[in-house]
Amino acid sequence: MKQNFAVLGAGNGGQVISAYLKLCGKHVTLYDRFPQVLAPIRARGGIQLEGVSKTGFAKLDQICEDVAQAVDGAEIIFVVLPAFAHAYVAQELAGCLVDGQTVVVCPGATGGALEFRAIWDRAGCRSKVRLCETNSLFYAARAQDAVATISGVKDELSLAALPAQDTQAIIDDLSDVYPQLIPAANVLETSLNNMNTVVHPLPVLLNAGSIERGEKFRHYFDGITPAVGEVVEQMDRERVAVGRAYGLDILSLRDAYIHYYHVQAEKMSDLCHMSQAHADIMAPGVLDSRLIVEDVPMGLVPISALGRAAGVLTPIIDSVITLTGALVGQDFWKSGRTMESLGIAGLDREQLVARL
Amino acid sequence: MKQNFAVLGAGNGGQVISAYLKLCGKHVTLYDRFPQVLAPIRARGGIQLEGVSKTGFAKLDQICEDVAQAVDGAEIIFVVLPAFAHAYVAQELAGCLVDGQTVVVCPGATGGALEFRAIWDRAGCRSKVRLCETNSLFYAARAQDAVATISGVKDELSLAALPAQDTQAIIDDLSDVYPQLIPAANVLETSLNNMNTVVHPLPVLLNAGSIERGEKFRHYFDGITPAVGEVVEQMDRERVAVGRAYGLDILSLRDAYIHYYHVQAEKMSDLCHMSQAHADIMAPGVLDSRLIVEDVPMGLVPISALGRAAGVLTPIIDSVITLTGALVGQDFWKSGRTMESLGIAGLDREQLVARL
Repeated sequence: MKQNFAVLGAGNGGQVISAYLKLCGKHVTLYDRFPQVLAPIRARGGIQLEGVSKTGFAKLDQICEDVAQAVDGAEIIFVVLPAFAHAYVAQELAGCLVDGQTVVVCPGATGGALEFRAIWDRAGCRSKVRLCETNSLFYAARAQDAVATISGVKDELSLAALPAQDTQAIIDDLSDVYPQLIPAANVLETSLNNMNTVVHPLPVLLNAGSIERGEKFRHYFDGITPAVGEVVEQMDRERVAVGRAYGLDILSLRDAYIHYYHVQAEKMSDLCHMSQAHADIMAPGVLDSRLIVEDVPMGLVPISALGRAAGVLTPIIDSVITLTGALVGQDFWKSGRTMESLGIAGLDREQLVARL
Repeated sequence: MKQNFAVLGAGNGGQVISAYLKLCGKHVTLYDRFPQVLAPIRARGGIQLEGVSKTGFAKLDQICEDVAQAVDGAEIIFVVLPAFAHAYVAQELAGCLVDGQTVVVCPGATGGALEFRAIWDRAGCRSKVRLCETNSLFYAARAQDAVATISGVKDELSLAALPAQDTQAIIDDLSDVYPQLIPAANVLETSLNNMNTVVHPLPVLLNAGSIERGEKFRHYFDGITPAVGEVVEQMDRERVAVGRAYGLDILSLRDAYIHYYHVQAEKMSDLCHMSQAHADIMAPGVLDSRLIVEDVPMGLVPISALGRAAGVLTPIIDSVITLTGALVGQDFWKSGRTMESLGIAGLDREQLVARL
């Protein structure tokens, strides 16, 4: 079992993970790039953890704004950041990683581990470091003023290392704190099981007028109407088809609802209303929220790219990429994760699977 | 000047045109496929015309449900139908047209005249018939219970014949009743000046959630928010680029607002709110309204096809075609007007322009 942890990112997820690890008795350093994010935690000297997991005050061992300082001596490095911050942190890490460390991108969105590896390779980083990603967050949680409240804990979360032969060793290293981790075949499986790509951008797009008119509505419960749910499910089939093309058994959104939330319904919209963890979540108040600027370029764009490389057409996904980009004035086809930026351009399906 | 007119279609537009022509002293037959549409007009023996043009009771010469009967003896045949009814009526006309008649598809949506010609050719119709289309309707009007009320008359409407050498002769034939007709270069110009393609489907798509939630809002004034207006303008640039590729000077939506409505604004959304004729129009109450099932397959699909044939990419248009189709459960790429169904497949740009 490992004792020394660094957690990069002090948003909701990072605060919960660092507090939880501390309450498990680990040595924990918390990093964030922005001092204003760390200020309330510094003022308190740690984080008060509340909710459905461990509770109590977690006095953190170190709080800092410097990546090199944060990971110095860490055996396990959790990256708990929006995917659009991955490239920056990967670049910072390239200069300071040492042999034997493990980096857990949690979650990797789509292509997280591949992007870290590509950036390290380009930066000439030669350290023997294990690298992996999870397909989702451990927690549903909210943090404010250094009080983090957990409303739900996933009882199953999949993890894959790059290369996949490291997966089991990492799961073993984390088994005392996160026994719910299960192995995925490879990072394509975790990356393609990024469900946010299916339930976030499309409903925002089809409710863009409402959002800009300032209407308050619940993203899932009100935003996913029957017809929107139909398109969500059609788009989900494209994601599953991309996975199948790589020999992966990707869970459909419908099966995920059944499996994780134990709900059943004929219509996708009804299914999307049944998860208590999601039903009350409000739609974003702006168009360029993370549901677009994270889940399109670091989610739909690499899924489309992987599809194209495997000869799978993704017309609905591609349309959502184009229209959400037009809506927020960005070209996600350029800014998003591509086969080039993931360091896997030119590989055919077999070569790619072999690389992983 | 011509004296004998048939008007095919007894919706708002067909009722207004037939009543107007009758009040101009012409011999007028009104046709509709559906007896229930004709019933109130039959009950009254004609149409009461109200509003800003001619007013009075127009006793029609003939009201019938048979195309052959309707066009027998007609010199000018106005087709005033939703574009999705064009193929049916063109097929019916193929069997009964005679030399010397003129068919005016009003409006042609995108590719109307081409579709009529293609259907007649396939049906082996050899009659020497002039064929043309307009780019829009003459009137803003509403008809109910055989009372038709005109709220606006366009003071300029463009018309093109197929082939274009017939254009001026048709305009001359109609000049006593419709002096506002001006010639367009060819039917691609009228077809690509179908502004409904730009202002109808996209705002519906980006307000799909609102529509399905049953919210009442004004299509232009509320539905075209600043960001929606931005995408409308980006999409409009694709339409204009397709026209340029064929050597046509297509009016942008922005210039159309300036030209026709004499309004000016920086933001497209503001422009779209300034036309008094449009501002109060409510959004459709269902997703599969004419704003989708007419303007996508008989508007955006042929614009995209014409773009592809000329090497012009139309990614936003294509995305709207794909997503609106997914939303209403139809594949508009298949049901819409294609180069094949318009009878112009395999022609390059020069060959196509020569054909017109």
